[in-house]
Amino acid sequence: MTDHPKQSPTLFSVPGIRLGTACAGIKKPNRRDLVIMEIAPDSTCAAVFTRNAFCAAPVTMARAHLATHTPRYLLINTGNANAGTGAQGLRDAQVCCETLAQLTGAESTQILPFSTGVIGEPLPVTRLCAGLPEALANLDEHGWDLAAQGIMTTDTRPKGASRQLMLQGRTITVTGIAKGSGMIRPDMATMLAFVATDGGLDSARLRRCLHEAADVSFNRITVDGDTSTNDACLLIATGRSGVHVADGDDYQALCMAVCDVCVELAQAIVRDGEGATKFITIDVRGGRDEAECKLAAYAIAHSPLVKTAFFASDPNWGRILAAVGRAGIADLLIESVVMHLDDVCIVRNGGRAPDYQEADGQRVMQRDAITIRIDLGRGTAQTQIWTCDLSHEYVRINAEYRT
Amino acid sequence: MTDHPKQSPTLFSVPGIRLGTACAGIKKPNRRDLVIMEIAPDSTCAAVFTRNAFCAAPVTMARAHLATHTPRYLLINTGNANAGTGAQGLRDAQVCCETLAQLTGAESTQILPFSTGVIGEPLPVTRLCAGLPEALANLDEHGWDLAAQGIMTTDTRPKGASRQLMLQGRTITVTGIAKGSGMIRPDMATMLAFVATDGGLDSARLRRCLHEAADVSFNRITVDGDTSTNDACLLIATGRSGVHVADGDDYQALCMAVCDVCVELAQAIVRDGEGATKFITIDVRGGRDEAECKLAAYAIAHSPLVKTAFFASDPNWGRILAAVGRAGIADLLIESVVMHLDDVCIVRNGGRAPDYQEADGQRVMQRDAITIRIDLGRGTAQTQIWTCDLSHEYVRINAEYRT
Repeated sequence: MTDHPKQSPTLFSVPGIRLGTACAGIKKPNRRDLVIMEIAPDSTCAAVFTRNAFCAAPVTMARAHLATHTPRYLLINTGNANAGTGAQGLRDAQVCCETLAQLTGAESTQILPFSTGVIGEPLPVTRLCAGLPEALANLDEHGWDLAAQGIMTTDTRPKGASRQLMLQGRTITVTGIAKGSGMIRPDMATMLAFVATDGGLDSARLRRCLHEAADVSFNRITVDGDTSTNDACLLIATGRSGVHVADGDDYQALCMAVCDVCVELAQAIVRDGEGATKFITIDVRGGRDEAECKLAAYAIAHSPLVKTAFFASDPNWGRILAAVGRAGIADLLIESVVMHLDDVCIVRNGGRAPDYQEADGQRVMQRDAITIRIDLGRGTAQTQIWTCDLSHEYVRINAEYRT
Repeated sequence: MTDHPKQSPTLFSVPGIRLGTACAGIKKPNRRDLVIMEIAPDSTCAAVFTRNAFCAAPVTMARAHLATHTPRYLLINTGNANAGTGAQGLRDAQVCCETLAQLTGAESTQILPFSTGVIGEPLPVTRLCAGLPEALANLDEHGWDLAAQGIMTTDTRPKGASRQLMLQGRTITVTGIAKGSGMIRPDMATMLAFVATDGGLDSARLRRCLHEAADVSFNRITVDGDTSTNDACLLIATGRSGVHVADGDDYQALCMAVCDVCVELAQAIVRDGEGATKFITIDVRGGRDEAECKLAAYAIAHSPLVKTAFFASDPNWGRILAAVGRAGIADLLIESVVMHLDDVCIVRNGGRAPDYQEADGQRVMQRDAITIRIDLGRGTAQTQIWTCDLSHEYVRINAEYRT
C-alpha cells in the first residue's frame, strides 16, 4: 500500500541479541542480503516451521539443529530459498553453517540457517560465505532496523515491531522483525519472523508462548493462499533483563507483548502483500465451531473474484456471499447469513438488506482498510483473519519474478 | 486465448429441439441475452446443479419444477444471475415462467428458468418478458449457434460441440452449448450447459449418463476456484431418432458421445477462461487414491503463483512443487515426486532433474497448451483436470465487471 511510511518504526534493542548485515551479492549486487543474529549464551529458543511437505534445505537443517542444541547464531540470506535443491541444498547449508562456526568458535550445530528467495536454484555458497566476515564485523545491539531491511525480498518496506513492559520493577523488551509479501498463507509460521525478548523463559513456556502468538498472528494472514516452503518463526528469550518469568500474571503480560509484536508483524506482511492496495479484515462469527468460521473466512480471502472486486473498490457483495456458499459448511442456510462492510449492513436473509444503498457500500470500499463481517447465524464460534486485494501489480510482480 | 477462431464449430440440429433468441436489453441494449429452448413432448431430461449453498432463485425453481414435471421449455437469460435476490428473486422467476406458459400453452411448472450474470441485482422482469414473443417467433431447429451466443456473459466466443453416431442403423446426434468464463470451479455442473440428443433414454439412464459425463468434463475444470451460484447442466433426450437405447453397447456408445461433447464444452470454457492465454492440463498420477491426486491437482490449479508463472511463460517449477507440498497429502515424501512439463522432465527426487536445461522448460512454456505431469510415486491412482493461467486481463475484467 503506497500511503504507508517507508521507514520501519523504532525498534528497541534486546540485551543479549546483536545483529549484523552485509551485501553479499547473492542475487543482485549492492543489496543488503545477509543477516547474522548473535544470541547470548544460556538463552532459550523456540521455533515453528512450514508444514509444506516440500520444505527447504535450511528448514530441515534448522529443525535438526534446534532439536539438539540451543542456537548461538542465526544465519539468514535472501535472494535464494535453497528449496527444491535436494541433497546438494543440504550440503550447501551445512557448508555455510560450518564456515560461520569457524569464524565464531561456535559449533556448526549451534547455527540455524534460514533462506528466502527464488526456489530451485543452487545456493551461491561462495558469495554467501565471503559476506560473513563483514556481517560479523558490524554486529550491534542496535542492528534490528538494518536486519529488517536485510531479510526483504519482494517486500517494499522493512517490517519490525517492538514493545516494552515493566515486570518485577524492570523494563522488559520484546522486539521482532519479519519479511514476506508473496507466497503467504502461513501454516504454523510465516515466511520469516524473528522475535526476541530479554525476559527469561524456560523452553517449555517459550514454546507455549510462541504457539499462542503464532496462532493469533501469522496463522491468520493470507495473501495468495500459497504456503511457502521456507516459513519459519523464531522466538528467543535471552534472560538478560534478569527477570525470569514463570506462570501467572507475569507470563500472561509477557506473552501478551509477544502476541502484540507478532500481530503487528503479521498485519505488516498483509499490508505489504504483493500488489496490495487494501488491508482487509475478515471477521466471521455465529458459527457452530471455529473450524467452519475459518472455512468461510479463507474461502472469502482466497477468492480471486472477491479480491479483484476490492481492488476495484466495488461493493460486489454477491461474490463474497458466493464464497461463503461454496466454503463447504454443512447444511448452511444462506437465508440466515448477515453481512456488513464496516458499519454498513449489506446482506440480510440471503439477499440485499432492504435499507442498503449502493452509495453506502461504495463509501466503505474507498477506504484503505475494510472489515468484512459475516454472521453465519447458527452458533457462537468466531474467527478473524487478515488479507489483501488482488491487483494488476500482483500479476506483474509474479509474472516478472525471475526475469 | 486470442489465437483461437471466434466462430463456434458447426452444430448439428437435434430433432425434437428448437431454439429461439432475442435481444431483451436485460443489461445492455442490442445484445442477444434471451434464449428459449423448446423440448418435444415425451422427451426425458436430467440435470445437475451447483452445490453452492448460496444458490440462485432460478436454480431453486428449476430443481423444484424438474422434480415433478418433464420440461417443455428452458428459459435462459444472461446479464443478471437473479442470485442473492431472496424471496423477490423467486417471485420474479415465477412471473417469467408464468408469462412464457401463457404464451405457449404449457404449464409454468414445465418451464425451467436459468439466469447468469451479475449477482445481487433484481431481475428486470418486464424487459425479460417483453422479449419472449420475439424469441418464440424465431424458434428453429438450427438455432443452436445463435443460442450459444445468447448465453454468453464475459465469454469472448460461443461454445458448442456436436457428435453424430450410428446406432441400430440410424444417425443419432448429440449437441450441446455452454457458457462460462469466470467464477468457474464447477461442483457437479458448470455455469450453464445444455446438451440434447435425439436418442431415446429413460430417466434413470439419462441421469446416469449425465453424471458420468459431468464427472469427466465440467467437474474437472477450474478457472479461479470460485464455484458459481448458478451452475447448471442439462441433458435432454428427445427420442425423435426412433432409437431407444437400453443398457449395453448402444448405451456405452451414446454415453461416450455425450461425454465427448461435455469434455469439448468444458475445455472450451477453460480456453476462454477470463483473461486466459494458456490452456493447462494437470495430470497427477502415482497417488494412493484419486482424492489425493485431486488435492495436488487443484492446489496447483488454484495457486496464483503457478498461474502467473504460466502467464509469464516462466518454467518456475518450484512454485508447482510448493503447491504439491502444501496440498495436504498425508506423509507425502517430496523426494519421490517426479514432474514433467509436456515431455521435459524437470523434477526428480525433490529437486531439479540432473539433465534438465532451463532452455527446454522455456521452450515448452511458450506453447498455448501445456501439460503438467506429476507422479507422486506412492500408488496407482490418477486424475486429470484442466485450468488456465492468471493474467493482467483477469484482474482487469473482474475489477471492471460491474462498471
